[in-house]
Amino acid sequence: MDEERVLLDHGSGGRASQRLIREVFLRHFSNPALDAMDDAARLDPVFGALSMSTDGYTVDPVEFPGGDIGCLAVHGTVNDVSMLGAKPLYLSCAFILEEGLSLALLERVAKSMGEAARAAGVVIATGDTKVVPRGAADKIFIVSTGIGRILIDPPPSGARALAGDALLLSGEVGEHGLAILSGREKMQGFPDLRSDCASLNHMVEALIREVGDIHALRDPTRGGLATALCEIAAQSGVVCLVREEDIPVRAEVNAACSLLGLDPLYLANEGKLICVLPADKARTALEVMRAFPEGRLAARIGEIEAPGPKTRPGQTLLRTLPGGLRLLSMLEGEQLPRIC
Amino acid sequence: MDEERVLLDHGSGGRASQRLIREVFLRHFSNPALDAMDDAARLDPVFGALSMSTDGYTVDPVEFPGGDIGCLAVHGTVNDVSMLGAKPLYLSCAFILEEGLSLALLERVAKSMGEAARAAGVVIATGDTKVVPRGAADKIFIVSTGIGRILIDPPPSGARALAGDALLLSGEVGEHGLAILSGREKMQGFPDLRSDCASLNHMVEALIREVGDIHALRDPTRGGLATALCEIAAQSGVVCLVREEDIPVRAEVNAACSLLGLDPLYLANEGKLICVLPADKARTALEVMRAFPEGRLAARIGEIEAPGPKTRPGQTLLRTLPGGLRLLSMLEGEQLPRIC
Repeated sequence: MDEERVLLDHGSGGRASQRLIREVFLRHFSNPALDAMDDAARLDPVFGALSMSTDGYTVDPVEFPGGDIGCLAVHGTVNDVSMLGAKPLYLSCAFILEEGLSLALLERVAKSMGEAARAAGVVIATGDTKVVPRGAADKIFIVSTGIGRILIDPPPSGARALAGDALLLSGEVGEHGLAILSGREKMQGFPDLRSDCASLNHMVEALIREVGDIHALRDPTRGGLATALCEIAAQSGVVCLVREEDIPVRAEVNAACSLLGLDPLYLANEGKLICVLPADKARTALEVMRAFPEGRLAARIGEIEAPGPKTRPGQTLLRTLPGGLRLLSMLEGEQLPRIC
Repeated sequence: MDEERVLLDHGSGGRASQRLIREVFLRHFSNPALDAMDDAARLDPVFGALSMSTDGYTVDPVEFPGGDIGCLAVHGTVNDVSMLGAKPLYLSCAFILEEGLSLALLERVAKSMGEAARAAGVVIATGDTKVVPRGAADKIFIVSTGIGRILIDPPPSGARALAGDALLLSGEVGEHGLAILSGREKMQGFPDLRSDCASLNHMVEALIREVGDIHALRDPTRGGLATALCEIAAQSGVVCLVREEDIPVRAEVNAACSLLGLDPLYLANEGKLICVLPADKARTALEVMRAFPEGRLAARIGEIEAPGPKTRPGQTLLRTLPGGLRLLSMLEGEQLPRIC
């Protein structure tokens, strides 16, 4: 029997679009705002400043060890909204589908999105679907946009890191990048790695509640830990100093990276955060993070320093295992395209 | 000299991404929220209920008579947010670019977006850029998401049309659809038509302020006027009755449609709205609409009726020029893929 597939008609805005929306999307995302089916969704008032973030997801393969493009589109945007010290409330999602896409695959992706949104406590309030002719897109792209309520003033920002602050990381790095690679290449003997993709909003909310004064939060996605640290150093005009021995990396990730010539510090993560805060709050923050399954390996990986005689604002330095200092720069070139 | 092109590297999240963001996007969109360059944008508090809408733009060709994908991504989403009786405030934009795209084209698109946003009075607060390998997408897709403040309670909704209400249309239909087709096909002797794409938020704000009690607003984009009327009839459980002689259509549009076997009532528009309101407010509303250049041909095109012995809830009927009644259904099949 022929598999059911997405047709151009499903993106026409006419009857077939309505059917697709009802049978696939409303089924998995149902909520009063979305079900109203107006051009825009009516959202309840949000009291206070808002956090807004958008991200496009083009990950290849669509389904990979540990997740798929659907839950990734929820986790990734929930996390970006959260990094401003905010509680994510609403998501929108726009699908760009290639004609001929398997409807069963689309249904699995929608189910995964719905589950991830419920777990994060966010409402998928509005959406859109376009279908482009075969060859004009590769299977499925999703753009999700989130808004949330900022819980603290001033909010954490990459520009607020101060000399003397501690640098915390919520867990091991590199798993998402390698999981995508293994899903794509089907390499013999590749370690059994799963993406770390997860929503961190509950952890962020607990950090704001229990610790309060957090200077910067950032999730090290594309470009990895090294690039995110460089961004913070540049935005704040400080130096990030991190110790290789304190950065949690799974042995299998290190082994695979050695084999493939990749650096785990530049691999994408989808369920980790960097937290910069006054050093005297570091212990409490680590306890809060470790109380969550996705933060159980949280560690203090370094410090923020003022630029000294041998360093410049914006630099990130790695104290290597042998004891030397290595300057980390932002990712140059593309390690792996379509990683998220 | 080789033309500068988008590279995979521009979507890596690393140094080249930062350069692209600074040199192309920040240049045309600059504002404090975006310039902060955090994972999410901090937005000032919005007092009252919110309107949120998202739309994916995949229009082919990227540049067409009367506009391009950039201004379209602003107009379309501004209009969708407005249809809930809201004042659009913030937009996000996510770009999915094909490796090899002309940087000059991207720059023109960004410039056009920035101009459209300024004209509409909305802030492009946050964005994202992904680059996929050649052949994995066709040139450029944009997803824009907007949020705004709802100006009236209850807000207009497709579900609030009442028997006895008047049906108004803000201008001539069919121009966007035909402009895209002419841009794509380069047909000999094709009339010189431009897309009607325009932001309608200032008109909506004036309508809410001057008229107040508006039952439904909808912009007849994909699927055209006929599909939008069918949606309102279905959501409200009423019958839409429209008169062909009162629906504004340019002579060139009618002529081109006859030639090509297209129906102007099913062609996409990107700068028109349907307004449903109590009949005694129709005259004032028409005056308000006609005071705007994009509403100067606004017309009362019909009425909302209760289902009668010969009609069913959800039906849309057209009183044709010869005097007969034609049942309009939602668009079946796809008239023109990638129209928006």
